[in-house]
Amino acid sequence: MNDRTAAPVTIIGLGLMGSALAAAFLKAGHPTTVWNRTTAKADRLVAEGAEQAPTIGAALKASPLTIVCLTDYQAVRELLGEHEADLDGTTLINLTSGDSAQARETARWAERNGARYLDGAIMAVPSAIGTAEAVILHSGPGPEFAAHEPTLAALGTVTHLGADPGLASLYDVAGLAMMWSVLNAWLQGTALLGTAGVDAASYAPFARQIATVVAGWLPGYAEQVDAGSYPAEVSALETDARAMAHLIEESEAAGVNADLPKLLKAMADRSIAAGHGAEQYPVLIEEFAKPTP
Amino acid sequence: MNDRTAAPVTIIGLGLMGSALAAAFLKAGHPTTVWNRTTAKADRLVAEGAEQAPTIGAALKASPLTIVCLTDYQAVRELLGEHEADLDGTTLINLTSGDSAQARETARWAERNGARYLDGAIMAVPSAIGTAEAVILHSGPGPEFAAHEPTLAALGTVTHLGADPGLASLYDVAGLAMMWSVLNAWLQGTALLGTAGVDAASYAPFARQIATVVAGWLPGYAEQVDAGSYPAEVSALETDARAMAHLIEESEAAGVNADLPKLLKAMADRSIAAGHGAEQYPVLIEEFAKPTP
Repeated sequence: MNDRTAAPVTIIGLGLMGSALAAAFLKAGHPTTVWNRTTAKADRLVAEGAEQAPTIGAALKASPLTIVCLTDYQAVRELLGEHEADLDGTTLINLTSGDSAQARETARWAERNGARYLDGAIMAVPSAIGTAEAVILHSGPGPEFAAHEPTLAALGTVTHLGADPGLASLYDVAGLAMMWSVLNAWLQGTALLGTAGVDAASYAPFARQIATVVAGWLPGYAEQVDAGSYPAEVSALETDARAMAHLIEESEAAGVNADLPKLLKAMADRSIAAGHGAEQYPVLIEEFAKPTP
Repeated sequence: MNDRTAAPVTIIGLGLMGSALAAAFLKAGHPTTVWNRTTAKADRLVAEGAEQAPTIGAALKASPLTIVCLTDYQAVRELLGEHEADLDGTTLINLTSGDSAQARETARWAERNGARYLDGAIMAVPSAIGTAEAVILHSGPGPEFAAHEPTLAALGTVTHLGADPGLASLYDVAGLAMMWSVLNAWLQGTALLGTAGVDAASYAPFARQIATVVAGWLPGYAEQVDAGSYPAEVSALETDARAMAHLIEESEAAGVNADLPKLLKAMADRSIAAGHGAEQYPVLIEEFAKPTP
């Protein structure tokens, strides 16, 4: 399946995700070198055409681009740290799960050793790798991303967020916070309506519609945040807070969990106490942007 | 502007919202009778063609359909309670803000007095009334809603949720919980990315996309809830919980509020402690459906 025009690529780490990455490159015709501490994990990939490197040093030298996908950043530093001399001149893309501080520190370490470095976050499960559904976020030097984008495209929908190598991790957790929040709000409503005999399937389309409509407001609300000005064009925060009290009362009366409703109101109440009751909802950024009091 | 073919309608309560309702009926050609405790509030509507009733009793008798929009349910019972004899044979639609218990109790009271009763919730600001953007939820007897739907259509997008008169209030607060949750998750991400120099406008399209994609999962996840079976087809709850720990760490390291991240993890941790770590996210319904421990 190797294609002489496709760029060679190395994968270090063959867990479920690393194996899926290697398989996607092979399928797209890239000459693919793999390395894993437990060598047997490479067997299936070798049968599909991958080269198995005997050492990490050999793996790094086999391709101009190496993708790292290990358990954590400590494993990255331990395993690649033994082969620092082989980093010089190569490009590393680290898709290991970690936080933004680890990404920035690893970028500095790689660059000190002469490597070009991009950090990435995979917003997908292994089975989606190689399809457009697999969103993979990258951050680090823009020209470096541009140079390898045609290769990375074999993995899914790849995007570049900016030069700060910590951005991929931050966007990742921010996106997950949105995912869990939509799910929790839907569960709150499903629980509440369930007490009135409404099944989840009946309520879900309503929840989907509200979430989709509100998602469409975000770019406009973002302008208020960037301008630092929150005129109550649609409604005032104190009106929201009164309705939040209704949500708490309904949840408690129905005997369902009221933690989410109470958190919603607590955040709004803090902003109202700070004098923002007559402004619009996005003024809450002033509470979100500072540590929990 | 009155249209001899359009059904007559009465509006009781001319606050900002009641006045907007009356104006929308007048604009659509319905013979419109109004009543308000402070009579001067009717002046503009009378100039536009409304009839001003001298008493609530006269207002109730002027039209087969009366829409009530007062400050709260106590005001509804006090004001209409003095004219119970005039309720017999009429249809009341109560769009006053309140909770599901008040709606059910008011339905019983109206029906004891010979009225047909629908309860409603307006998911719109007064300026949107009369446009398709104004979503108005109704609950109560279905045939009664069907009989008046052509009239109510003058107000916006009107829907009927079921025979339980409490449903409109419950859907209303559930929908608001989704609205606030999407906004808060967006604010959390905006605050976090802001510490890395990303402005709100740059982050908003990403947040919008995630919210929209996840909203699309809800009908499928609802099937798991209705079936009471949560196989980990995409990912297991314990994987989510590990990523939630990252979100908390990133939020604390960046010096932004971590209350929302902590609540997300607390709910997941409770479900994992109950033995559901290997199941999929919607299994959390079992925590949401019972009171806060």
